[in-house]
Amino acid sequence: MDNSSSPSETAGKPIICKAAVCRGPGDPLVIEEIEVAPPRAWEVRIKILCTALCHSDVTFWKLNKAPLSVFPRIFGHEAVGVVESVGENVEEVKSGDTVLPVFLPNCGECRDCKRKKGNACSEIDTVMHHVMPRDGSSRFKDRNGEVIHHFLFVSSFSEYTVVDVSVVVKISPQIPVDKACLLSCGVTTGVGSAWKVADVEEGSTVAIFGLGAVGLAVAEGARLRGVSKIIGVDVNPSKFEKGKIYGLTDFINPENCGEKRVSQVIKELTGDGADYCFECVGMASLVEEAFESTRVGGSTIVIGVDLHGTPLKLSCFDLLMGRSVKGSFFGGVKPKLDIPLLAQKYIDKELNLDGFVTHEVSFQDINKAFDYLMQGKSIRCIIWINP
Amino acid sequence: MDNSSSPSETAGKPIICKAAVCRGPGDPLVIEEIEVAPPRAWEVRIKILCTALCHSDVTFWKLNKAPLSVFPRIFGHEAVGVVESVGENVEEVKSGDTVLPVFLPNCGECRDCKRKKGNACSEIDTVMHHVMPRDGSSRFKDRNGEVIHHFLFVSSFSEYTVVDVSVVVKISPQIPVDKACLLSCGVTTGVGSAWKVADVEEGSTVAIFGLGAVGLAVAEGARLRGVSKIIGVDVNPSKFEKGKIYGLTDFINPENCGEKRVSQVIKELTGDGADYCFECVGMASLVEEAFESTRVGGSTIVIGVDLHGTPLKLSCFDLLMGRSVKGSFFGGVKPKLDIPLLAQKYIDKELNLDGFVTHEVSFQDINKAFDYLMQGKSIRCIIWINP
Ligand SMILES: NC(=O)c1ccc[n+]([C@@H]2O[C@H](COP(=O)([O-])OP(=O)(O)OC[C@H]3O[C@@H](n4cnc5c(N)ncnc54)[C@H](O)[C@@H]3O)[C@@H](O)[C@H]2O)c1
Ligand SMILES: NC(=O)c1ccc[n+]([C@@H]2O[C@H](COP(=O)([O-])OP(=O)(O)OC[C@H]3O[C@@H](n4cnc5c(N)ncnc54)[C@H](O)[C@@H]3O)[C@@H](O)[C@H]2O)c1
Ligand SMILES: [Zn+2]
Ligand SMILES: [Zn+2]
Ligand SMILES: [Zn+2]
Ligand SMILES: [Zn+2]
Repeated sequence: MDNSSSPSETAGKPIICKAAVCRGPGDPLVIEEIEVAPPRAWEVRIKILCTALCHSDVTFWKLNKAPLSVFPRIFGHEAVGVVESVGENVEEVKSGDTVLPVFLPNCGECRDCKRKKGNACSEIDTVMHHVMPRDGSSRFKDRNGEVIHHFLFVSSFSEYTVVDVSVVVKISPQIPVDKACLLSCGVTTGVGSAWKVADVEEGSTVAIFGLGAVGLAVAEGARLRGVSKIIGVDVNPSKFEKGKIYGLTDFINPENCGEKRVSQVIKELTGDGADYCFECVGMASLVEEAFESTRVGGSTIVIGVDLHGTPLKLSCFDLLMGRSVKGSFFGGVKPKLDIPLLAQKYIDKELNLDGFVTHEVSFQDINKAFDYLMQGKSIRCIIWINP
Repeated sequence: MDNSSSPSETAGKPIICKAAVCRGPGDPLVIEEIEVAPPRAWEVRIKILCTALCHSDVTFWKLNKAPLSVFPRIFGHEAVGVVESVGENVEEVKSGDTVLPVFLPNCGECRDCKRKKGNACSEIDTVMHHVMPRDGSSRFKDRNGEVIHHFLFVSSFSEYTVVDVSVVVKISPQIPVDKACLLSCGVTTGVGSAWKVADVEEGSTVAIFGLGAVGLAVAEGARLRGVSKIIGVDVNPSKFEKGKIYGLTDFINPENCGEKRVSQVIKELTGDGADYCFECVGMASLVEEAFESTRVGGSTIVIGVDLHGTPLKLSCFDLLMGRSVKGSFFGGVKPKLDIPLLAQKYIDKELNLDGFVTHEVSFQDINKAFDYLMQGKSIRCIIWINP
C-alpha cells in the first residue's frame, strides 16, 4: 500500500495495507496484507502512527476460552493516529485530525454519559468488542476474503483501522505521538483510578500491586495529589527503581516476605493499613490481599483483568466496618471529556509521562514487544506503524 | 432507686437502678437491680428516657460464638437520654442536656474524624465494645458484685448507663423523644447509607433488600433525593404497605418469584439493573444477589450485619466493568456532625420519621419488643425506661 496516498484518493474505497494478524490463542502475530473497508455511518477510519502493547492485549491473546476468545483477530488498543476519512454523520472529527482510538465508548448522549458519576456508556455493548458496535460486523478481511475480528473496538496493530466515532478522542497535535499513545489506555487508566475512582487525597497512604504502566500511572496520580506514602508491590524487583520517578516510597517483593503476608507488611508500614490499595496485575487472590491491606474506611480498587472466573472472596464483616471495593474500567474517566485534560497536564509539565516508554520496535518486530512485556523488561514498548 | 433524685445528689456516687440483664445467648432479659459506677474521666452518665430495639441487638443477643459473644450483658443501643453527671475533662455536655448515646465513636481529633471522607474513628477500637473504650473496664455490676458487660458502648436497656464522651451526641430537646431515639441508630444508618455512602442522585433507581427500620430509612433518604424507582425486597409482604409511606414504588417477595431470581426481576423492572442496591438484612448471599441486581456503574451497599463469617463471593469481571461494593457502618455519618443535621430536617418537616414507631412497651415488658421484631410485626418498638 502507498502510505503517501492523500485522503481524497482513499476515502470511500477499501484500503489494502499491512496488519499484524493473530490466527489463534498465543500464536505469534504475522504481518499480512489485509483489506480495510471504508467507514460506514458514525465510523472513522484512522491511519495509526504508533501503538503500544498493554497487558490486556496479552491476556486476550493467550485466552483460549469462549466466548471472549475470538480469532483471527487484530490486537492493539493503545494507539494514536490521524483520521484518514469519516463515514456519514461524523461531524466531530475530520480527515487530518490527530486522534486516540480508545476501548471505551463515550456516546455523549446516553443517560450514563450525561451522568456526573462513572463512565459506563450504556449506548454500546462493551463486551462485544470484536465487531463494530452498531452493526455487529467487521471492517477487516484477509486476502482470501476471510473476516478478521476487531479487538476492544480499536485494533491498532494495523496500518489502518476503522472505529466507531464514540471511541475517538481528538487531541492536540502538540504532544509527541509516543506520549499521546500512552493516554489511550494504560496511563489514563492508572491516573484516573487514583483521581476519579479512589479520589486519593493529600496525606493518605497508597499501596499498588503490580508496577507495570498502569500501576506506575496510579503512583503518578497519587504523587500529584500529595499522598504521604506510595508502597509498590511487585515480584520483579527492577520495578522499584522505575517506580521512584513516580513517587514510590516503599517497595515490597512478596517473594522476600518470608512468613509474613504482604498485607501484614503493609500494615506495619502504614500503622493500620493503607487508605487505598490498587490491584494492577489481574489476579483475584491479589485483590483479596489488597483488600486485607486496607484500613477501616479504606478502598480497594480493582484494575487488573482476571478472566479466569475465580470468584473474589471478601469478608462481609470487614466490608461492613467501612471498607469498599471499586472496579475501575478505564480509570473511571469519560474519554472525550477527561483525556484532553490529561493531555493538557502533560503539555503544562504537570503530568510526568517520561519514563513509561522503555522500548521501541518497528512494525515488523511487533512480536518482540510481547517478549519484552512478558519478560518484565518493558513498561511500554512503542510499535511504530506509520513512522 | 429514686427517679426523682437530682443530679447533685447522685453525681460522683454509684447509682442503684434497674436494668434488663441478659445472662446467656438467647436468654430472656431479666430486670434486675444493678449498680452503675460514676463516670470516670471523659465519661458521661446518662439517664435513659426511652430506647428502641434494633436488629443488631437481636443478632448479638443470639450470638453463641467467641469472641463477640459476651455475657452477662446489658443490650440496647438505640436510645435517648438526659445527662445525669459527667466525669473529669468533659466539657461538651453537662447535666440536664438531652443526648443520644451512639455506637460509633467520633472523637473529633483523630485523623479519621478530621478527614472529609468516611466515619471511622481511629482513636477507639470499635470491636471491643463490651467495655469502656479508654480503660477496658465495665461500669456495671450486679448485686453480687459480678461485672456486667456493655454493648456497642451504649447499653441502653438500663435506667442509667455510662458512656464515653466520644459517643455522646447533643440534640435539640425540641424533638419528641421517641423520634429522637430513632436517630441513634436505625434511621440514621439508612438515610446516611443513601446520602453519604451511596450518594444516590435524582432519577436513579434503587433496590432495597430488607424493609425493617434500616431499609425503610434508606427508602426515605432515596425519596428525598428524588430517585425514580424504589424497589423493596422482603419475605414479609406486609412491609410493602409500610414502605409506600417512604416512597417505595415496587415490591418483590422472593418467595413469589417462581423460577426467577430476584436479580432478574430487578433487571426487568429497571431495564438493566438498579443503580444502587442496599442489603439491609444481614446475609452474605443477599449481598451477592444485590450485587447481581446492579447495572454496570452501579453500587451495592452492605448494611446488614452477618456474623456467620460466610465469605462474600463476587465476580471480578463484573466488578471491573465499573461496579462497586461499599460497607456502610452507621450510614457513613460522623455522629456529632451529621445527627444534629438530621434532627433539624425532622424539625423542618423534611425528614419523615412518622410511622417508624409501630409499638411501645413499658420497661418490664422489654421481652415483648424482641417478639414483635422477630415475628416481623414491628418496625421499631419503643421501650419506655424513665417515662
Ligand atoms: N481496568 C482497565 O480499564 C484496565 C486498563 C488497562 C490495563 N488493565 C489491566 O491492568 C493490568 C496491568 O496492566 P499493565 O499493562 O500495567 O501490565 P504489566 O504487565 O506491564 O504489569 C504487570 C506487573 O505486575 C507484576 N506482577 C505479576 N504478578 C505479580 C504478583 N503475583 N504480585 C505482584 N506483582 C505481580 C509484574 O511483574 C508487572 O510489573 C493488567 O491486568 C491489564 O489487563 C486494566
Ligand atoms: N451497618 C450498620 O451500621 C447497621 C446499623 C443498624 C442496623 N444494621 C443491620 O441492618 C439490618 C437491618 O436492621 P433492622 O433493624 O432494620 O432489622 P429488621 O429485623 O427490622 O428488618 C429486617 C427485614 O429483613 C427482612 N428479611 C429477612 N430475611 C430476608 C430475606 N431472606 N430476604 C428479604 N428480606 C428478608 C425481614 O422480613 C425484615 O423486614 C440488620 O442486619 C442490622 O443488624 C446495621
Ligand atoms: Zn489497555
Ligand atoms: Zn453513552
Ligand atoms: Zn476520632
Ligand atoms: Zn442498631
